[in-house]
Amino acid sequence: MEKTKKEVPVEVDKTGKFIRQKNQFATPFGDQPGDLPVEAERYRLLWAAVCPWAHRSVIVRSVLGLEDVISLGTASPMRPNIDRVDWEFSLDENGIDPVLGIQYISEIYKKTDPEYAGRPTVPVIIDVKEQKVVNNDYFRLTNHLETAWGPFHKENAPDLYPEQLREEIDALNDVIFHDVNNGVYKCGFARSQEAYEESYDVLFDRLDELEQRLSTQRFLFGDYITDSDVRLYATLARFDVAYYSAFKANRNRIVDFPNLWGYLRDLFQTPGFGDTTNFEAIKIHYHLSNHISSDDQKSQNILPKGPDVSNFYSPHNRESLSGKEEKFLIYK
Amino acid sequence: MEKTKKEVPVEVDKTGKFIRQKNQFATPFGDQPGDLPVEAERYRLLWAAVCPWAHRSVIVRSVLGLEDVISLGTASPMRPNIDRVDWEFSLDENGIDPVLGIQYISEIYKKTDPEYAGRPTVPVIIDVKEQKVVNNDYFRLTNHLETAWGPFHKENAPDLYPEQLREEIDALNDVIFHDVNNGVYKCGFARSQEAYEESYDVLFDRLDELEQRLSTQRFLFGDYITDSDVRLYATLARFDVAYYSAFKANRNRIVDFPNLWGYLRDLFQTPGFGDTTNFEAIKIHYHLSNHISSDDQKSQNILPKGPDVSNFYSPHNRESLSGKEEKFLIYK
Repeated sequence: MEKTKKEVPVEVDKTGKFIRQKNQFATPFGDQPGDLPVEAERYRLLWAAVCPWAHRSVIVRSVLGLEDVISLGTASPMRPNIDRVDWEFSLDENGIDPVLGIQYISEIYKKTDPEYAGRPTVPVIIDVKEQKVVNNDYFRLTNHLETAWGPFHKENAPDLYPEQLREEIDALNDVIFHDVNNGVYKCGFARSQEAYEESYDVLFDRLDELEQRLSTQRFLFGDYITDSDVRLYATLARFDVAYYSAFKANRNRIVDFPNLWGYLRDLFQTPGFGDTTNFEAIKIHYHLSNHISSDDQKSQNILPKGPDVSNFYSPHNRESLSGKEEKFLIYK
Repeated sequence: MEKTKKEVPVEVDKTGKFIRQKNQFATPFGDQPGDLPVEAERYRLLWAAVCPWAHRSVIVRSVLGLEDVISLGTASPMRPNIDRVDWEFSLDENGIDPVLGIQYISEIYKKTDPEYAGRPTVPVIIDVKEQKVVNNDYFRLTNHLETAWGPFHKENAPDLYPEQLREEIDALNDVIFHDVNNGVYKCGFARSQEAYEESYDVLFDRLDELEQRLSTQRFLFGDYITDSDVRLYATLARFDVAYYSAFKANRNRIVDFPNLWGYLRDLFQTPGFGDTTNFEAIKIHYHLSNHISSDDQKSQNILPKGPDVSNFYSPHNRESLSGKEEKFLIYK
């Protein structure tokens, strides 16, 4: 079991910048030689509701109707203890994932590769038949679900990754990843004032630009939700309840951006989004179990009551931008 | 010099509630036997720009035109070091207050009373002639400046404490003290979830009530600024930049209350208020030098860039509630 003296990330360079670790298990799903075979009821997706990278896979799984095809295991938002960067199945009966029979996600990583030295991350896809990790590619996983898993999509499932837009979606996803999704972590995990301020400026400049983009169109690529919206959503939904305070990403909150705030509520009120968003888990993790929380704060063990999230259900009137009620492009 | 192992307040009861220490030096100014004599150029007020209790004395000193009558010494917002609850004159040349010749405020407390065991607090009035602490009564000090110091008020100084309103002002000041001024500290320094949540609810219930009160009148007692407004201002001005995150007082920010936010800007834009408000000092203290900041955060030494405070200068239109331009009741 990997143990570090303290849960401070070692993924920091000499200038104090946070450098996220690379994923080890990136084999795609598909029907080409070497691909992971696409098979119903063979795989299990492990996530923790707090994690924005895992959350997007869970949103896409729900929107595409893959719930009966790929099962889901849910880890607790609390790290096992301060010395251990791991995810634990303490929400399950007897603290054990009922399908895999493990207490910690690190167990299946170690079983797969006894030399595995990275953080045991979610999302991760487990091949239940082989009892091993086959994919933890948080960046590409939603795209695999949207494409290779097409044969198992529910009837009238939307096309979140339309072929004619893929190049543009990939390009925007890159930007959203560096400046926003990972951008908030670069603020929170920076270990120098310069690295922090640089990330802060990049983050808010990008949010200003997205605010502008969303002033004339309902979603990032027009009238319909795409994979890029899922990615932006996962960060925006966590912003005011966690990143604003815990990661010092505090120029503004999302509620202060009229278009981003309307857009966030529009997505939140869409099946698959709000119903997979667990604000309590997010708060518990970032305030009580976070890498950068202090020993002192942990011993205090006090969970902020705020902010008030009841306003996520308020009307947003974003449909007026598209002139349509429906938000999804349905396959022909 | 008082030293504690760690800067965690010991002013906490068995249930985890924060209990603020009592003041030792509470002799009033006046012309009765035993009172402190009211004399120009005899006293020095020591403050730190971060401290809300000290700030209100500095606001009143400015509004009443007592700057040439009582001198001012300014301590740094940074605590000397993590093991030491003290205030230091590191902003002054050679790190020494030029009038008192001291490096730390604790020095003058100890000189006055070698047995002094409390926190060395600001505001504190020093009798420069006698070289000793004479008053650190943060609760009553503004009232002394408003009454006993009347003979030295500037021409056309306002009446911040009108006789016919004193009983009501005192009653409201008590409420503001317990629920708001000290209420944010009760949130931040609570050491149990129950104590924290109780303080949080009391605080926001009170802010909701004040929001209502300020919906029909410009200031707490109508058309004119009184001592109560000074007290409420000192906490509101620090709320969004400090207490919201550092003290977990995060149901809403002040900018989310339309009337409180207009009221706060109205006061901020009044001479004596905004020009004595130092957001940078406030942020430095609460985020880098605060009692409850963690060792880890301190070693990170990262100051949040936000929130954006440029909006403190925006129009508030509060004068429409009084129908008057002037905000002060001038002595007849």
